[in-house]
Amino acid sequence: MSGTIEPRVLKGFRDFLPDRESSRKRVRALLEEVFSRHGFVPIDTPVLEYTEVLLGKGGGDTDKQVYRFEDHGGRDVAMRFDLTVPFARFVAQHRPELYLPFRRYHIDKVFRGENTQRGRYREFVQCDFDVVGVDNASADFEILLLMVRALEALSIPDFTIHVSHRGLLRAFLAKLDHSGEEAEVLRTLDKLPKVGEETTKGALAELTDEKSAESLLSFCRSAGSRQETFVALKEHLGPAEPALSRLGEIYAAAEKVGIEGRLELDPAITRGLDYYTGVVFETFLDKLPGIGSVCSGGRYNDLAGLYTKEHLPGVGSSIGLDRLLAALEELGVSGLGGAAPELLILCLDESLIPHYHALSEVVRSLGLGAEVYPEAKKLPQQYGYADSKGIPFGILCDAETAAAGRVHLRIFSERRNIEDITVEQAAAEVAKRTARE
Amino acid sequence: MSGTIEPRVLKGFRDFLPDRESSRKRVRALLEEVFSRHGFVPIDTPVLEYTEVLLGKGGGDTDKQVYRFEDHGGRDVAMRFDLTVPFARFVAQHRPELYLPFRRYHIDKVFRGENTQRGRYREFVQCDFDVVGVDNASADFEILLLMVRALEALSIPDFTIHVSHRGLLRAFLAKLDHSGEEAEVLRTLDKLPKVGEETTKGALAELTDEKSAESLLSFCRSAGSRQETFVALKEHLGPAEPALSRLGEIYAAAEKVGIEGRLELDPAITRGLDYYTGVVFETFLDKLPGIGSVCSGGRYNDLAGLYTKEHLPGVGSSIGLDRLLAALEELGVSGLGGAAPELLILCLDESLIPHYHALSEVVRSLGLGAEVYPEAKKLPQQYGYADSKGIPFGILCDAETAAAGRVHLRIFSERRNIEDITVEQAAAEVAKRTARE
Repeated sequence: MSGTIEPRVLKGFRDFLPDRESSRKRVRALLEEVFSRHGFVPIDTPVLEYTEVLLGKGGGDTDKQVYRFEDHGGRDVAMRFDLTVPFARFVAQHRPELYLPFRRYHIDKVFRGENTQRGRYREFVQCDFDVVGVDNASADFEILLLMVRALEALSIPDFTIHVSHRGLLRAFLAKLDHSGEEAEVLRTLDKLPKVGEETTKGALAELTDEKSAESLLSFCRSAGSRQETFVALKEHLGPAEPALSRLGEIYAAAEKVGIEGRLELDPAITRGLDYYTGVVFETFLDKLPGIGSVCSGGRYNDLAGLYTKEHLPGVGSSIGLDRLLAALEELGVSGLGGAAPELLILCLDESLIPHYHALSEVVRSLGLGAEVYPEAKKLPQQYGYADSKGIPFGILCDAETAAAGRVHLRIFSERRNIEDITVEQAAAEVAKRTARE
Repeated sequence: MSGTIEPRVLKGFRDFLPDRESSRKRVRALLEEVFSRHGFVPIDTPVLEYTEVLLGKGGGDTDKQVYRFEDHGGRDVAMRFDLTVPFARFVAQHRPELYLPFRRYHIDKVFRGENTQRGRYREFVQCDFDVVGVDNASADFEILLLMVRALEALSIPDFTIHVSHRGLLRAFLAKLDHSGEEAEVLRTLDKLPKVGEETTKGALAELTDEKSAESLLSFCRSAGSRQETFVALKEHLGPAEPALSRLGEIYAAAEKVGIEGRLELDPAITRGLDYYTGVVFETFLDKLPGIGSVCSGGRYNDLAGLYTKEHLPGVGSSIGLDRLLAALEELGVSGLGGAAPELLILCLDESLIPHYHALSEVVRSLGLGAEVYPEAKKLPQQYGYADSKGIPFGILCDAETAAAGRVHLRIFSERRNIEDITVEQAAAEVAKRTARE
């Protein structure tokens, strides 16, 4: 029976080896710390749900991507394909136990059986954060602030959040007398960066007319300095347009807190989904525009309408964690890995193994990570292990040194020892050297 | 279309609300810190795998519990039912990239469509940790040490790890001339605590004979003080029995490090699975023996035999995290929750919302968590929100106070304010009070 099955994973699925999994854990921990500091609390929902709950009674285009099957009890079940739908179900189901405004975050895997050709994965981690139960500029701003602080926490050097409001285009289409085409126009404009102005103009002209298509594109090109954009939008829409007032309030808070430099007012941002009703945003890394938006979202006015009659407005955003991780690797952002402990207690004599474990416990009690090499293999092999794992220091101790209560500290990068010191001195030296790096 | 679908989860699946999810996150973070300090590194594997990889070519009793279906590409796929099988596949597949001994941990969800009657869940979190690539007492001890340190990190007051070695019973059965019945005898003895001595004796007598059944039970009763047990076992098996020597070495390390008081040498521990070949262990909470073992494992001699010809011995253990979490709640272990930030910036005047966000940023920059109440609702409602969420302090600031650069600090538990201070002073007061608690 030995070795009869080929060890492999499904297409679109991945193993994470220690270095990358450590990075992912670190990114997650940094984000969680930011969320927590801003009053956002974690929730969890099942990976598997009733298909009806995830897809609704009808079901649409997403259906084809959903992992769906019949369970042992004959139930029609599906694996979650995002964290938004389960959140809507969660809020409707637990409404009496939740206080509003409810600020939640959720970081976990989602599953989509989609085409894997464009570097897409069928299992990937999303990170969602939302404020539910209030519709005003304070909550809108809070999500933008969180996006800024989250990306800063990950040491991402340069990024810009493009902000718009669905109401702008809606009002503009009303002035053009093309309100009926709103959904299609939104979807068309959303593809503008991908397909270019000519194609978009043609598509818009078909939906509306030549002149309106021209106007819409000019409207989307309004982006300049913030003041210029506001002026242009006021000219297009009139100064009393509520969407403009809301954006003004958001900018007032951004200026007060000093993050307005991270934002760019960009009427071209529409987000494809009908779902959004107010502010919308997408985030681009200045140095990697090609990877697209790493953090997007907006305001929606009826989160849980599929499950409850209660009207629950909200605003939220989602980070594609795996895409962001890839970006961080490409940008060379460091300090995210580091799965290895600081010290390897080398094994010179197997009868000293209990002593080695006692030494490693001393090191740990001083706040460092340590592990014991479990066999008295030749030193080059043990050194090679430290090198592979990325352990920077070693402790050498034979029977004589042990009897004297001393050790030698091995500095692998310098291929030399600091000899005949106590284990506490060795730990202090390591702490000093790792702090300096 | 409003509210047409009942918001509900599948039987055996659960939502985690913020308090419980925070506890789970805290438990996970504490465990990860311990693992990391001991040189254990994290990995991740997919939730979905080829059924053949998870179940082998034949498949056994577990099959019925496995969520299995055909994906869009016609592949026979299944959701992982534990973290051990994917780990075996992982090691075989990535062998050239791994250094040995490979110490890994993995904490994540697994799925079993089993009967939910006995408080079992169909989705639950497991926490596995293993050392692969070495077969000696040092690695065995390392896992025991990690179990002790992990449970200590969770502030579990009293627990005992029952330790045995498969070789003990094997040797004893050989002396009784019943080696052929080993697997069945193991499974029968594993049920001893549940079914009692009489039933077990009957079942053993059927498998072997009356006298052997008596001897086996007396062998399992050997547990007394460690010295007494070693003496009894040496009488049963002779002093040269390798399993006894291995246990002696493990105890030598445990004594040197000072954790021998956490261990109990207990020949009745067999673990039901054929899988184990050496040391085996189960952990019981002294105050909650009824919940069964919270952390179990042992040594296996061929981890990845299904996928590779390379012989990979290992030793590992698994914590049932959800069961442990329930135990912690029952034991009243505190300090695990705490999802709420320290401060709520109350909203007295909506025109001050930018100022409130600036205040909250000052508080955060001083290391505390803070959030802004986004609407100028009546104060009792805002206080009620703080109470529901568990936020202990508030900041009150109206136009006049804001103009003076001052705030009032609200101490919710005492229903009083500290008036007319700077926000920095308020933060310092909160830091002082929360540190003292």
